[in-house]
Amino acid sequence: MIAHTDPDYATVKQTAQANDTLTTLQPNQYVLPGFIDLHIHAPQWPNAGLALDRPLNEWLDTYTFPLEAKYQDTDFAKLVYDGLIQELLANGTTTALYFGTIHNAANLELAKACIQYGQRGFIGKVAMDNPEQTPDYYQDASAQVAVDQTEQFIHQLNELNQTTDLKQTPVITPRFVPSCTPASLQGLGDLARKYDLPVQSHCSESDWENGYALEHYHMRDADVLDHYGLLTDKAVMAHGTLLNDHDYDLFSQKQVAIAHCPISNVYFGNAVLPVNRVLAHHIKTGLGTDISGGYSPSLYQNIRQAVMSSRMLQDGVDNQLLPDKRGVDGSAISVKTAFYLATLGGAESLHLQTGKIAEGYLADLQVVSMQNDFQTETTDNIFEKLMYQTSKADINQVYVQGTRVK
Amino acid sequence: MIAHTDPDYATVKQTAQANDTLTTLQPNQYVLPGFIDLHIHAPQWPNAGLALDRPLNEWLDTYTFPLEAKYQDTDFAKLVYDGLIQELLANGTTTALYFGTIHNAANLELAKACIQYGQRGFIGKVAMDNPEQTPDYYQDASAQVAVDQTEQFIHQLNELNQTTDLKQTPVITPRFVPSCTPASLQGLGDLARKYDLPVQSHCSESDWENGYALEHYHMRDADVLDHYGLLTDKAVMAHGTLLNDHDYDLFSQKQVAIAHCPISNVYFGNAVLPVNRVLAHHIKTGLGTDISGGYSPSLYQNIRQAVMSSRMLQDGVDNQLLPDKRGVDGSAISVKTAFYLATLGGAESLHLQTGKIAEGYLADLQVVSMQNDFQTETTDNIFEKLMYQTSKADINQVYVQGTRVK
Ligand SMILES: [Zn+2]
Ligand SMILES: [Zn+2]
Repeated sequence: MIAHTDPDYATVKQTAQANDTLTTLQPNQYVLPGFIDLHIHAPQWPNAGLALDRPLNEWLDTYTFPLEAKYQDTDFAKLVYDGLIQELLANGTTTALYFGTIHNAANLELAKACIQYGQRGFIGKVAMDNPEQTPDYYQDASAQVAVDQTEQFIHQLNELNQTTDLKQTPVITPRFVPSCTPASLQGLGDLARKYDLPVQSHCSESDWENGYALEHYHMRDADVLDHYGLLTDKAVMAHGTLLNDHDYDLFSQKQVAIAHCPISNVYFGNAVLPVNRVLAHHIKTGLGTDISGGYSPSLYQNIRQAVMSSRMLQDGVDNQLLPDKRGVDGSAISVKTAFYLATLGGAESLHLQTGKIAEGYLADLQVVSMQNDFQTETTDNIFEKLMYQTSKADINQVYVQGTRVK
Repeated sequence: MIAHTDPDYATVKQTAQANDTLTTLQPNQYVLPGFIDLHIHAPQWPNAGLALDRPLNEWLDTYTFPLEAKYQDTDFAKLVYDGLIQELLANGTTTALYFGTIHNAANLELAKACIQYGQRGFIGKVAMDNPEQTPDYYQDASAQVAVDQTEQFIHQLNELNQTTDLKQTPVITPRFVPSCTPASLQGLGDLARKYDLPVQSHCSESDWENGYALEHYHMRDADVLDHYGLLTDKAVMAHGTLLNDHDYDLFSQKQVAIAHCPISNVYFGNAVLPVNRVLAHHIKTGLGTDISGGYSPSLYQNIRQAVMSSRMLQDGVDNQLLPDKRGVDGSAISVKTAFYLATLGGAESLHLQTGKIAEGYLADLQVVSMQNDFQTETTDNIFEKLMYQTSKADINQVYVQGTRVK
């Protein structure tokens, strides 16, 4: 990375030219940081766009759990994960925080696909051992099994990492409070401390999930996770649409990040995450697709929906109410804020030096073309157009750690 | 169009084969009706994705009117309209109801582009003669000019239609109540009756527009339009987010259609159109992109947003409210309903025999590929995936009146 004004600029350019490593942009091309998908269920990719009109429980039982159970078959896992990683890279996603399944052989296929196609993955073996909230054909047989398999996956992934410069990171992954027993939550919290690893889960995603903790633990969902040592400064909690001010303070104090998934929240969140309130509490926040609770693998689509959802929170939705009773003033976020979430916000949540184009930052980049250029535009206008109009076909090149992967 | 079970099927197939006019679908390809964009401002295409964070008035004055004024330059009009029509056809839009500008030479370029690239256009010369609500560099000089130019465009378009089988339809187009004087509204209503032509305008789009009619006419926005003879059974009113039950009854009685523009409404509508309530009043309803109030030229994107906005109306958006006070029960629409709006709903609004694949209907079609096919799916599931995942690149062929245009 060298600036146009640097005294060495000409020399560096010449050397690159001589080595045939110089990339020259077309007039309508722009370089942006690669995106970070801070919450995605890799195994649910074949169901993207399916059954979004069902309530969360039914969606899990009828569509999601049966599909995830199929990853017992490692060949199926390889087939899907090879397709998914290429699709995400093609959409400009250079880093992703993944939920896998309970099957470590399949989770390793996910890691191998990340290495093969060149994406930085954070990957969790999903832990789900509560027989009351998981189907008998797809569950960890006990808390001990959930914890042991998680620890096994940590070792397996560390071993795989010996073979590559593009390190894949294991993540402690209790699915969510309802699907785990207190014993597995405890064991997973212990593992997070023992190995100093990232943690991911869902927290207060919906009225139902929010209510589950209150009913079964007589505590807030966030407090249950905290009680078991799962709210660390490396923890990323998905959704959080029903978090309250008490939870925000806890997240802020413990430096827990939120993965905002605006498309998914429309279907399963029961409310809009008030991003401005979250950011005012100095909570790290990134953007996630939540495949397949969200239908789109594109962070561009999620940037747009983050802006749109925030505006719908601001203006309100019900025309039967008077304008001043309809919405929540001060809720709208800008396209720039949404872009921040998809880049730097995610990077900070994962303790990565990426998400912006600057010296000392990883070269995770995307080169995109602007199609609609009938008039000369200001930089701000070009940025807005790119955010609103870029589709996969307009992303010409993608780089992860300086290596071209598209 | 011939069914597989028809006794003539084999003969018809053989003839097509012999004539080299047989199209065979791949296993992952599906035929759908072409889409109808029931509300789009053709001249605003270069601004798609710009300045959506401004209030409607500022957006009009600072971005939209200056751009529309440039269509005084017919070469610029041709450049933009050639690009736009190809873009819309590539996105599967086979019919569109257009706002042009005040300039008839430019409006004719739009009609020529529709004919050249093969789209069925309904095109309006925009009438806007109220000096208090239009800038002096972009307005009709008087009510008489607004009406005369509209009548001139009707004749010009009829003449142009002599040259083609793909008829373009002139549309009476008062921009909206604020930008017109009573005299131009009256004159335009008279023209609509005289020539029995479609009418288009905006109605109760926002609190501001809704309030304008109340303040200046002491009538509802819809009643003003009705008073001047503009609410006919060939009228299409954009948005209508702030319409009330009185207006619904009027629309229903007069057989006026609504062009629902869910993406645009997020930015400028101040509320969600309650589609189920509208349909319960038996009001014809279609789907529009409202470029550039909406940023996307794709009806697929608008189908998704129609579903999402309806769900946000159903569940509500403000997590500070209890679940039973948050939303409006019964508001969610299905993907099928949204698809209906983008096809048959639009066709009925324009009195066209299209929007479904059946005998006696125009062959306006799109052939789309499903990418994500890791598993065998039911027809319902395939349909949902197509609606949620199709992008421009997945639309392989488009036909208008049986002629391939993509
Ligand atoms: Zn999730
Ligand atoms: Zn409009």
